[in-house]
Amino acid sequence: MTGRTNATFAPPIIAASRWLDGVTFPPERPLINVSQAAPVAPPPRALREALAEVVLTHDAAHLYGPDLGLPELRAELAQKWSRLYGGTIAAQDVAITAGCNQAFAAVVDALTVEGDEVILPTPWYFNHKMYLDMSGVRALPLFTGPDLLPDPVRAEALITPRTRAIALVSPNNPAGVEYPAELIAAFMALARSRGIKLILDETYRDFDSRSGAPHDLFTDPDWRDTLIHLYSFSKAFRLTGHRVGAIIADPPLLSEVEKFIDSVTICPNQLGQHAALWGLRHLDDWLAGERQEILTRRAAIARGFDRLAAQGWQMRGLGAYFAYVQHPFDAPADEVAQRLVREAGILLLPATMFVPPEDTSGARHLRIAFANLDSAGIETMVNRLSGFAI
Amino acid sequence: MTGRTNATFAPPIIAASRWLDGVTFPPERPLINVSQAAPVAPPPRALREALAEVVLTHDAAHLYGPDLGLPELRAELAQKWSRLYGGTIAAQDVAITAGCNQAFAAVVDALTVEGDEVILPTPWYFNHKMYLDMSGVRALPLFTGPDLLPDPVRAEALITPRTRAIALVSPNNPAGVEYPAELIAAFMALARSRGIKLILDETYRDFDSRSGAPHDLFTDPDWRDTLIHLYSFSKAFRLTGHRVGAIIADPPLLSEVEKFIDSVTICPNQLGQHAALWGLRHLDDWLAGERQEILTRRAAIARGFDRLAAQGWQMRGLGAYFAYVQHPFDAPADEVAQRLVREAGILLLPATMFVPPEDTSGARHLRIAFANLDSAGIETMVNRLSGFAI
Repeated sequence: MTGRTNATFAPPIIAASRWLDGVTFPPERPLINVSQAAPVAPPPRALREALAEVVLTHDAAHLYGPDLGLPELRAELAQKWSRLYGGTIAAQDVAITAGCNQAFAAVVDALTVEGDEVILPTPWYFNHKMYLDMSGVRALPLFTGPDLLPDPVRAEALITPRTRAIALVSPNNPAGVEYPAELIAAFMALARSRGIKLILDETYRDFDSRSGAPHDLFTDPDWRDTLIHLYSFSKAFRLTGHRVGAIIADPPLLSEVEKFIDSVTICPNQLGQHAALWGLRHLDDWLAGERQEILTRRAAIARGFDRLAAQGWQMRGLGAYFAYVQHPFDAPADEVAQRLVREAGILLLPATMFVPPEDTSGARHLRIAFANLDSAGIETMVNRLSGFAI
Repeated sequence: MTGRTNATFAPPIIAASRWLDGVTFPPERPLINVSQAAPVAPPPRALREALAEVVLTHDAAHLYGPDLGLPELRAELAQKWSRLYGGTIAAQDVAITAGCNQAFAAVVDALTVEGDEVILPTPWYFNHKMYLDMSGVRALPLFTGPDLLPDPVRAEALITPRTRAIALVSPNNPAGVEYPAELIAAFMALARSRGIKLILDETYRDFDSRSGAPHDLFTDPDWRDTLIHLYSFSKAFRLTGHRVGAIIADPPLLSEVEKFIDSVTICPNQLGQHAALWGLRHLDDWLAGERQEILTRRAAIARGFDRLAAQGWQMRGLGAYFAYVQHPFDAPADEVAQRLVREAGILLLPATMFVPPEDTSGARHLRIAFANLDSAGIETMVNRLSGFAI
């Protein structure tokens, strides 16, 4: 094939799922799939009932809507985010997208051309890397140290005249770490001082272990000159199958985003938007409970890895949906991951899928999307890891 | 703004809708909106009831699905298309996309890189042009004559070493014309002989006035070496708000398409796919009735323009959802269109939105998405046009 897609790799989730081919999992040891951050249960019953009602009674929910999303949803999100972040966000600062990946893609196309650059801390979210590859945009890897936090000083040294943005994900996918508010502020100051944008993907915000706003960027009345915030409804309300995300940015930038959306999907699907809107209006308490459950699971996997430390396993980053762990084996992570499927019935992703080839740390690490499992499931997984050896 | 989106124009439908700002439409002369090919009514009741049931009872419909779509939908479409076109199409030849625009975008990214070329007959579908612009791919305009049919001989003369595909839309948007099967076959032969792809967008196929298969390309067992078929569920089942389309192509090409989908939307939304699947399984008779109604409307607008001929109006192309007409005024189409809003309460698109600037025919033509109106509505529109003068 001769196209842009040729510049990037096959989707990692799909590549990993092929490791399951031909492997049978006995009933007493079923597959534990922690490869993808995906709620395994559907959204709450009340949301489903409300959505069924929309299907039956709301004619417009079956027809084209505005490219940048339902006005009520944009307004609701603006209002809630203003309150949460203590800033001023208007409905026209909000665009609704077909999931948060589309939010990133649309922003990249609004900011960059062939040969431009975007700084991504490593380990990175593979779909960000893939979209940049396909767009002919160089992802400049910002290597992180043992704490997995990106360093603004090292970032500054990477900036060239072709650099258009720094893209951060906090809480981080795949590394789990929650970026301190001061660190995010330092990146905002850096981006502004160099006239580039800060793309801040907060897909996992609702599961942050810290309370209150995760950063204060929106309290700056001039946030629009630099900040581009991305969000996903997939995890908060378990709407992964509905494909609804959001961008908060300066309206002139959203006019550029609108061209991308018009040409690629015309508008976000309407039912997913109604589901997200209903969630924003009715699921605050439910979401607080979900967060509590994820934090309980987080504590369970932390305890599990305390035990596994005796066998040389190390927890490197932990938060939101993810544990980023170091394995104790004298084998590359790809091999460890594939043997874990066959010998322990665990599907997870090797860190080689999250780093450039020159980063040898990839071979020593694995990503576990632990939030897919309840505490008992986490205990089972830890026991299997404990019994696994190479 | 510095990005790829800067290389293209604002979405025409949105630009045109801004002409409505500040214009009031008296109750006795409400706005007639024929700017967009969009069913104004929702899908049939039975589909909505089936979909509500899916929302309430089918957990997986709320969660991530396969990147290339629901296996049942891919299989159903493969089976129906095999029957309709008298060819062999397998489920793995089918990908489901977030609407037919995404189908085109994904195919373009799978086939082209910066500086490549795709041949588009003019007038063209503006979203095709927009996506090519944003991708840094040159759209080579293939000018059509009075019959609005593209000429394979002229197309061949345009091909260079950077040309990757010819993209046809039949029945055509915006020109309405139904391409003869022999013409489509000639383009297939041309594409194959030059080692490029034929992208054939059949979004409006179900409203073709001819019965039977619109072309015989799928009867060629080697169709996969050249043909890429695109389809949309938006018009057939009135699912514009659900965003579901399809690609039929060689599986290795679909593996490239999968990278694009994974990075941009992860998967098509699930409810829309269930709606499309239910439609394919249950709405054959209903769709036949829809087609009959569109053909009735087509006859109505044909009669109307016979009358308008006395005032110098000319019907140039007519089919599917569209009439492509020549206006009789000594004024450019943009001005005619904007005055029609204010003076006749009709919103339609000037052909300048469908041709490159060097094509002066754009100034003389207008596109009317007549299928949005019933026969009485068409009569009203024709009367208003008859009373309009510059």
